[in-house]
Amino acid sequence: MKTNRIENLDDLFLEELGDLYNAENQLIKALPVMAQAAQSDKLKSAIEEHLEQTKNQANRLDEIFKDLGQKPQNIVCKAMQGLIEEGKEMINKSEKNPARDAAIIGSAQRVEHYEIAGYGTAKSHASLLGHKRVEELLAETLQEEKKANATLNEIAEGNINAEAKNCGCN
Amino acid sequence: MKTNRIENLDDLFLEELGDLYNAENQLIKALPVMAQAAQSDKLKSAIEEHLEQTKNQANRLDEIFKDLGQKPQNIVCKAMQGLIEEGKEMINKSEKNPARDAAIIGSAQRVEHYEIAGYGTAKSHASLLGHKRVEELLAETLQEEKKANATLNEIAEGNINAEAKNCGCN
Repeated sequence: MKTNRIENLDDLFLEELGDLYNAENQLIKALPVMAQAAQSDKLKSAIEEHLEQTKNQANRLDEIFKDLGQKPQNIVCKAMQGLIEEGKEMINKSEKNPARDAAIIGSAQRVEHYEIAGYGTAKSHASLLGHKRVEELLAETLQEEKKANATLNEIAEGNINAEAKNCGCN
Repeated sequence: MKTNRIENLDDLFLEELGDLYNAENQLIKALPVMAQAAQSDKLKSAIEEHLEQTKNQANRLDEIFKDLGQKPQNIVCKAMQGLIEEGKEMINKSEKNPARDAAIIGSAQRVEHYEIAGYGTAKSHASLLGHKRVEELLAETLQEEKKANATLNEIAEGNINAEAKNCGCN
């Protein structure tokens, strides 16, 4: 049980930023595992690129905390823990083939959607609280997450899903 | 560790449906807690309406499994567990006031986004596998989840966020 109370929108906003900060840092550890498990070079590269972007997004949150004169609270993002665990289970249940790649894409898109929801809410709260610069930084990340999700769609529809259907995988 | 292996798109599709089925059933238990914790009547009603919709979505998945001649695998959706746990933490950290309502909306939108990602992927796999009727059913749920997310946005922007900012909550 955490002790920081949420009494107003300022408290909630800090909680949200702490949650996103922890989520990004969990992802920085998890993405290399997903890249390693992927068969498709295209998918592997997309995940590796997103890893660099994720590191940058974590730095952007550092900048945001500085801008607000705050430090990240000690929050564990349980949702991201569950999302990552689920992704790892998918990898454990499969071999290196297009079916696993399709599963990795599904897991990664769930992660992107979590972040789209999280950054979307935080951006709207930043706006209401009058944190203009912070709002801009959150909007940048939000756009990147949406783009990453679209890229995963393209890769899935490009050929991986079809290969997963047709392969005598294994 | 689960024993069902993912060797092709059919296996992955069944895994996804089982994950969504478990997620909906977790939500059916969690939504009344969220409705109960909300202060705003509008938010409470929206969550209660979504509970009815969620029960219907679980029934739709029953229909899908029947249509496919399959039974739901025994899958625990760890991501939904994490999402719900995070939502409960938010409630535990707050009192019944607009700041809590804003937190509940944030949690509920994360849940909706998880489902949007999950149903989006499953629908695209159903299409590729030629399960036309199943694809239609998944598309119905997907539209409902998107609409539920939009409704939560409207409620947040209608007045809850502003009240959470301005209230001397507590």
